[in-house]
Amino acid sequence: MAEALRIALAGLGTVGAGVIRLLAANGELIAARAGRPIAITAISARNRARDRGVDIAPFAWEDDMTALGERADVDVVVELVGGAEGPALALARRTLGSGKGLVTANKAMIAHHGMELARLAEEANGGRGAPLRFEAAVAGGIPALKGLAEGAAANRVQRIYGILNGTCNYILSAMEASGADFADMLAAAQDLGYAEADPAFDVEGTDAAHKLAILAAMGFGTTVDFPSVDAQGITAIRAADIAQAAALGHVIRLVSHAEMAATQEGTQTLFQRVAPCLVPCSHPLASVEGATNAVVIETDFAGRLLFEGAGAGEGPTASAVVADLIDIARGAALPAFGLPAAMLAPTAPADPGERRNRAYVRFTVADRPGVLALITAAMRDAGVSIESLIQQGRPDEGGEVLVAMVTHDAPERAVAHALALLEGAPDIAEPPLVMRLLD
Amino acid sequence: MAEALRIALAGLGTVGAGVIRLLAANGELIAARAGRPIAITAISARNRARDRGVDIAPFAWEDDMTALGERADVDVVVELVGGAEGPALALARRTLGSGKGLVTANKAMIAHHGMELARLAEEANGGRGAPLRFEAAVAGGIPALKGLAEGAAANRVQRIYGILNGTCNYILSAMEASGADFADMLAAAQDLGYAEADPAFDVEGTDAAHKLAILAAMGFGTTVDFPSVDAQGITAIRAADIAQAAALGHVIRLVSHAEMAATQEGTQTLFQRVAPCLVPCSHPLASVEGATNAVVIETDFAGRLLFEGAGAGEGPTASAVVADLIDIARGAALPAFGLPAAMLAPTAPADPGERRNRAYVRFTVADRPGVLALITAAMRDAGVSIESLIQQGRPDEGGEVLVAMVTHDAPERAVAHALALLEGAPDIAEPPLVMRLLD
Repeated sequence: MAEALRIALAGLGTVGAGVIRLLAANGELIAARAGRPIAITAISARNRARDRGVDIAPFAWEDDMTALGERADVDVVVELVGGAEGPALALARRTLGSGKGLVTANKAMIAHHGMELARLAEEANGGRGAPLRFEAAVAGGIPALKGLAEGAAANRVQRIYGILNGTCNYILSAMEASGADFADMLAAAQDLGYAEADPAFDVEGTDAAHKLAILAAMGFGTTVDFPSVDAQGITAIRAADIAQAAALGHVIRLVSHAEMAATQEGTQTLFQRVAPCLVPCSHPLASVEGATNAVVIETDFAGRLLFEGAGAGEGPTASAVVADLIDIARGAALPAFGLPAAMLAPTAPADPGERRNRAYVRFTVADRPGVLALITAAMRDAGVSIESLIQQGRPDEGGEVLVAMVTHDAPERAVAHALALLEGAPDIAEPPLVMRLLD
Repeated sequence: MAEALRIALAGLGTVGAGVIRLLAANGELIAARAGRPIAITAISARNRARDRGVDIAPFAWEDDMTALGERADVDVVVELVGGAEGPALALARRTLGSGKGLVTANKAMIAHHGMELARLAEEANGGRGAPLRFEAAVAGGIPALKGLAEGAAANRVQRIYGILNGTCNYILSAMEASGADFADMLAAAQDLGYAEADPAFDVEGTDAAHKLAILAAMGFGTTVDFPSVDAQGITAIRAADIAQAAALGHVIRLVSHAEMAATQEGTQTLFQRVAPCLVPCSHPLASVEGATNAVVIETDFAGRLLFEGAGAGEGPTASAVVADLIDIARGAALPAFGLPAAMLAPTAPADPGERRNRAYVRFTVADRPGVLALITAAMRDAGVSIESLIQQGRPDEGGEVLVAMVTHDAPERAVAHALALLEGAPDIAEPPLVMRLLD
């Protein structure tokens, strides 16, 4: 058998320990599939002494994590430190700069610096290149990037959408099952380890936005454009919204959605949004429960492909990391985003104003006569017609009631206009919540 | 850009024409993703004159299809002729024997001769090997083999199951929706082009069994063993069975299922079965409708992965064929079944008798007193306890009624024993139908 692929692990948290456990448990199988063994030679983490339940004594230790990128006994560095900048980025640059391969689970770093790193990888080794792979950065154990860049490689991708954040999906599923409000289910998710102590990254949609920006570049052949992702979270969703959605035959899911859109002048633009949506109960995404992720790819020849599985966790993420290592060990030479970085097309963000869809709009209003007339008049003046309207019967403790409606198909600009007309109205207690219906 | 990958197409039916159309429509994108163009140089089919809606004038024509395998201007032959033996197999042998790559959508040939062809591919070019790939042979446009052999490469696969035959799934979905019987829906499927004029291959489970044998070899690292697949079809299913299943919260799907099973002595054996099953409505496979396919892989680290998409058709199958070509153009060098042929382990078929599951058993009986007592006594004597029992109220024209039951968890051997006790009973009109409940 050929010589081992020698790897260094940077970061020994859950995923790092998982990679050590996976290589130990399935090492023989992995060597058979890779054509050669995959051997850890060196490691680094913040705390050398911490008990991780795995024996790290056989591996060389580096105090200076970025030094892993230049060790003579390392072919590929596995970066599992996290964070868009800081040590992770320094390590990534040093690793690729010295001509070694990089495998990372770091979605933030790839969303922010993926283009720079892809170029560095291509220029490495005097232009022969070095592998850069990040399957674990998107949708955990699901081979979604592989499915997109290789499985669907012959297709023009028309649309990519899915459930990319397990924490939000867990909370929404739990709200659905229990009838509880967001804050209670967030606390429950934190107790169970499904949500971080600081959950903002997950519940405000940033984590999903990182993943969506990576998927979009891979699928559409555009440059990675994380700053243009329109990211909304799930913090404003109430138990009452979930109940209303159910009454309409829908569930609420945090849907990440990207597609190319042509302007009236024919210019291609890129639409990228993470936002809670109403998903029909018959849609495959509606049955994605708990911390599961799902990615749907709509293509011109293969039609609609769906990939579903665990979106996070030690085993699934380690599985994706080692799948990348096996590909590298086999000599797979695929550009980081499926196309050479120079071919990825810078693409202006789409103007969502022209997008047409049905929308769920929920107002919290004072329980006074005339409020409904005010709202419906604004909708009429903005040219938005209402398909159904539900006013919750009883006011809550603060004397407020919920008014929820579903609009007919309308441009997003028109709905925004209606809400602008209502801005500052004294009887409307808080910013209205708008959620699109997934078709 | 590097030199083109030159391919020959053997067979110009739906899929062959689809490959020509796909390469024409997305050629530039495909060249970018493959790192070089993919160019058709030569073709062959039974009938040169037939109008296929594509221009075949630019390609060299071979009357002798197998001669494609030795043309100097061809790097890879795409075999789309079909059939386990005959011209397809002759072409495959000649192609690999002359050191060229082979891409095929031919599940029957791979199920029957995959081992021989995998060895031929490895021995080609003086041992340097030639690529052999067949993504399109299993689950149409879904990159299921890639997901299994590459995406989940780091995992021990515990179980593979799914819906692998679109014709059967279309018929079962249509029976569900319409309440009609098998024969009517088969005729409708034939009218719509979802079923062949001779549907036996599909509706008797052979087609799914071919695909399952390929998936099992790929997932478990065993030699391909098609003859051991226990294949049952859907022809015995009645509208009444579907109604009973619905009353129990289930739908009926033709489920292909493979897993490794240890004998009491600890020997690993391979279980492979294609059979109609009762699938709980909450299970992802229950919502797979129409001609869609789905493959579920259960693994030790990545957990449960599900891949879903179009299982057949011109576009999806062509997409899978060209994905294989792109991989080859990129230089991907993966053994045909993910492992070198010599490492695939010959594995004895599992004895299903020890498998425990709940079973739906349906009898067609004469409407006479004592029949129910006869059946329930046989179940008791075989040690099978009954969870629920439904006797259809009114006899049909022939004076027969249906008796359906669901057993508690029991070894398959015990249920078989009960049915053996009832064999020849004059009041039992036809062989009972047994369908397992998917857990």
